[in-house]
Amino acid sequence: MTGAESLINTLAVNGVEACFANPGTSEMQLVAALDKQPSIRAVLCLFEGVVTGAADGYGRMADKPALTLLHLGPGFANGIANLHNAQRARSPILNIVGDHATDHLQYDAPLTSDIRGFASPVSRTYLVSASATTLAQTGLDALAASLAHSGSISTIVVPADHAWAAVEPQQYHLPEITNERISDDTVQTAAQALRNANKSCLFLGGRALREEGLEQAGRIAAATGCRLISETFFARQARGIGRVPTERLAYFGEAATEQLADLDALVLAGVKSPVSFFAYPDKPSVLAPETATQTVLADAEMDVVDALRRLADILDAPARPGVTTDRARYPLGEGAIDANELGKVIANRLPDNAIVCDEGATNGLGAFLLTANAAPHDWLTLTGGAIGQGLPLAIGAAVACPDRKIIALEADGSGMYTVQALWTMVREALDITVIMLNNGSYAILNIELSRVGVAEPGPTALSLLDLTNPEINWTDLAHGMGMNAIKVKTVDALDAAVGEALSHEGPSLIEVIL
Amino acid sequence: MTGAESLINTLAVNGVEACFANPGTSEMQLVAALDKQPSIRAVLCLFEGVVTGAADGYGRMADKPALTLLHLGPGFANGIANLHNAQRARSPILNIVGDHATDHLQYDAPLTSDIRGFASPVSRTYLVSASATTLAQTGLDALAASLAHSGSISTIVVPADHAWAAVEPQQYHLPEITNERISDDTVQTAAQALRNANKSCLFLGGRALREEGLEQAGRIAAATGCRLISETFFARQARGIGRVPTERLAYFGEAATEQLADLDALVLAGVKSPVSFFAYPDKPSVLAPETATQTVLADAEMDVVDALRRLADILDAPARPGVTTDRARYPLGEGAIDANELGKVIANRLPDNAIVCDEGATNGLGAFLLTANAAPHDWLTLTGGAIGQGLPLAIGAAVACPDRKIIALEADGSGMYTVQALWTMVREALDITVIMLNNGSYAILNIELSRVGVAEPGPTALSLLDLTNPEINWTDLAHGMGMNAIKVKTVDALDAAVGEALSHEGPSLIEVIL
Repeated sequence: MTGAESLINTLAVNGVEACFANPGTSEMQLVAALDKQPSIRAVLCLFEGVVTGAADGYGRMADKPALTLLHLGPGFANGIANLHNAQRARSPILNIVGDHATDHLQYDAPLTSDIRGFASPVSRTYLVSASATTLAQTGLDALAASLAHSGSISTIVVPADHAWAAVEPQQYHLPEITNERISDDTVQTAAQALRNANKSCLFLGGRALREEGLEQAGRIAAATGCRLISETFFARQARGIGRVPTERLAYFGEAATEQLADLDALVLAGVKSPVSFFAYPDKPSVLAPETATQTVLADAEMDVVDALRRLADILDAPARPGVTTDRARYPLGEGAIDANELGKVIANRLPDNAIVCDEGATNGLGAFLLTANAAPHDWLTLTGGAIGQGLPLAIGAAVACPDRKIIALEADGSGMYTVQALWTMVREALDITVIMLNNGSYAILNIELSRVGVAEPGPTALSLLDLTNPEINWTDLAHGMGMNAIKVKTVDALDAAVGEALSHEGPSLIEVIL
Repeated sequence: MTGAESLINTLAVNGVEACFANPGTSEMQLVAALDKQPSIRAVLCLFEGVVTGAADGYGRMADKPALTLLHLGPGFANGIANLHNAQRARSPILNIVGDHATDHLQYDAPLTSDIRGFASPVSRTYLVSASATTLAQTGLDALAASLAHSGSISTIVVPADHAWAAVEPQQYHLPEITNERISDDTVQTAAQALRNANKSCLFLGGRALREEGLEQAGRIAAATGCRLISETFFARQARGIGRVPTERLAYFGEAATEQLADLDALVLAGVKSPVSFFAYPDKPSVLAPETATQTVLADAEMDVVDALRRLADILDAPARPGVTTDRARYPLGEGAIDANELGKVIANRLPDNAIVCDEGATNGLGAFLLTANAAPHDWLTLTGGAIGQGLPLAIGAAVACPDRKIIALEADGSGMYTVQALWTMVREALDITVIMLNNGSYAILNIELSRVGVAEPGPTALSLLDLTNPEINWTDLAHGMGMNAIKVKTVDALDAAVGEALSHEGPSLIEVIL
């Protein structure tokens, strides 16, 4: 067997089931190895930003890594932005980067580059294969590392000669994976902080926002009266009826500061102290009041669910938390679509157990707010601010959860970044409804322009934020990649289109003119 | 004035005329400064790979840098692959990366990342602004550096607070730019190598392939009988009637080895010793015969044109070289289009002084070979092997040379990488004819799969190289971005479409079904 087969087969035996790929010549032996390994689903993406964004979505939903297969340094580099987002989401990912054969590197052929330089900032673990024989063990070390610390990114570099060389089958060993347990003292300190406060909150992030974390947080709220506030851009939150509801921290610093203004204590669970997304002239970066105490129960790397359970128990919290019960049904308005009407349609139509991948930007917030009392679902957001994540994320979620409906709530400016994702949705027949919000603008930047102090923008400035001239026709783009698509301009048409799209399996796109 | 205005105005005064941009919140002050500076053309691109590829095309044709405007680390990262290509092309580029305000960095807000890590591998010069007052000088230092060494990439990081702070106008100074001159001894050694050889070649790359470099190379060939061989993937070559012709080194190692087999001396001018693009089992990386001497006249950083002129003079070469004279006119075949018929149509139709941006991959070679005797033109290739360069390159060439016709010869798989480029072509009304070669495949990889030793690929392997299922409809994609487009399947239709597209100004796309 080849080194490539040894690696791929060993990873398959140890639970790897998906590989998002855009391979080139230096990965051909790895492609041949995937060819012989039916337990790994190999998914071609037409750009590496789609590959890594899909791996992020897969990791968030499967809690184990997908492989990525990337072509040398430039192929890796194309995937960095969505790895940045994945790193912020703490998604487990195992990147496999093909490189030149070891003897060839010295010649500085055109595709030679500093892979370590590109990869290190977005790889908690970075390993270079030492030999064909040890390549599979390197893969297992990277796999284990990706599962530690509540999820992280591992990258291994595979020289072409290690992939093509013949190796004898050997025993390889998956290192034990441990996640750090919170000390009793820490739990006691958090309990004391909540008991002593008049107005307190649990500030929740990471895995605290999974259903089991929220259950414990809800018990703590029932016992102490603390508010439950979620981080603004979380990896995955369980929502809808039957789930413990939270407030979401506002995006704009002024609103967030106001939201937190009356608190005298924050307990941080799976998240850092809240800070503004950007800095602005003469505005603070820190969002909580200076007078409030901040106590860390668990950071994002630790076992925050266990810590919340122990905290609830110490507080003699009731066994069951209060949850959202009444499913909301919103009467729809008529005529043109706005963020609120969009939200109502999605809330009414959301299928049980759906997964919403939200890169809806300025127009997505209505849908988020109005789905609080919708059917139970998971909501995934843009964790790292690097746009172009939403469509790939939906691919990964769909591959991880083939029995669940995926809704990709996507803004036009962000959608263009990784528009190639539509093609993979069609090829793999993924059950994704893309709701493309076409407002012809990087709308958030028109707001930001004034917020950073630019009072009277001129035509050049405005043109750099504008997506008309030419208008982007998403229906044509979808058709160009073989996807069913419809353009809607009224609430009625939107409602019918969402109903139709969700009534059958497979991908389709609804272009919403706002 | 703000720090941002000080920077942008100072760069404008020192000759900067173009900025390719995809800004975000942290660059809003720079956007406002561009708004007030009419001598810099600000061009919005919908993905940073388009931004940096356009800057590459601009740098190759203008011999001075365009600015790029990029949004923190992830925005920069999206542009890395085409910066890798630009680095191989020695294109001058000046990247401006916005970053968080200096006081905000400590909070590790979502978009915080290791910009230095991402940028260093593709930036010969990397500078972080030290203050609002010195920001403009930092910009001039980076500008000068980008012009040294025959062109390189400079990156400056601009914290948002340095952009928004008020500064007093000051005097800033553009450092002197020098390129290294070749010593007389080196020229004499090269002359001796050519005189002593029976079968010699000048191996030409970089600026040696500009018209003036080729003139001198042609004189040397006339004096010594040496062959003129160009590197396989050059940044820019002057070709067509009136120009000195060269042989191009073959891509596949076996063919290149054969091409060089009978040489006993190579003189390297603006290029390194020839090596294969990839390594393959049991095949050599070095392409020239072991028995041949290799003499460096000038590497790619030095003033190779001056060195060639002095070498020609030492060799008592004739004042005028032999050039291509008879313009070829090819009779067209009928029916389906192949690489040869495509090449004939392009050769016949090529306008005077056109610029061809060639990312045509497997089907582009016919056009290259058949245009040797076409109208005078410049030919630009994919220098670094990172696909997705061709369409952005055409944007940059068109902005640099608004009076010349641009032909983007583009392969489908590569074109999808930076498909967003079509939108910018339309917005800026650039005079670009995109000839999109749709063969529904990463065709080169089907060849490479067998070359690396995979004898019998199965369905998974083949599916990872295939671009059908679904078919990509480029006409729809172009229409989705407001571009005129036509699909052609016969030589007649292709010929008519190319004639029509070139008969008027502005962008259009011809989808060629192969």
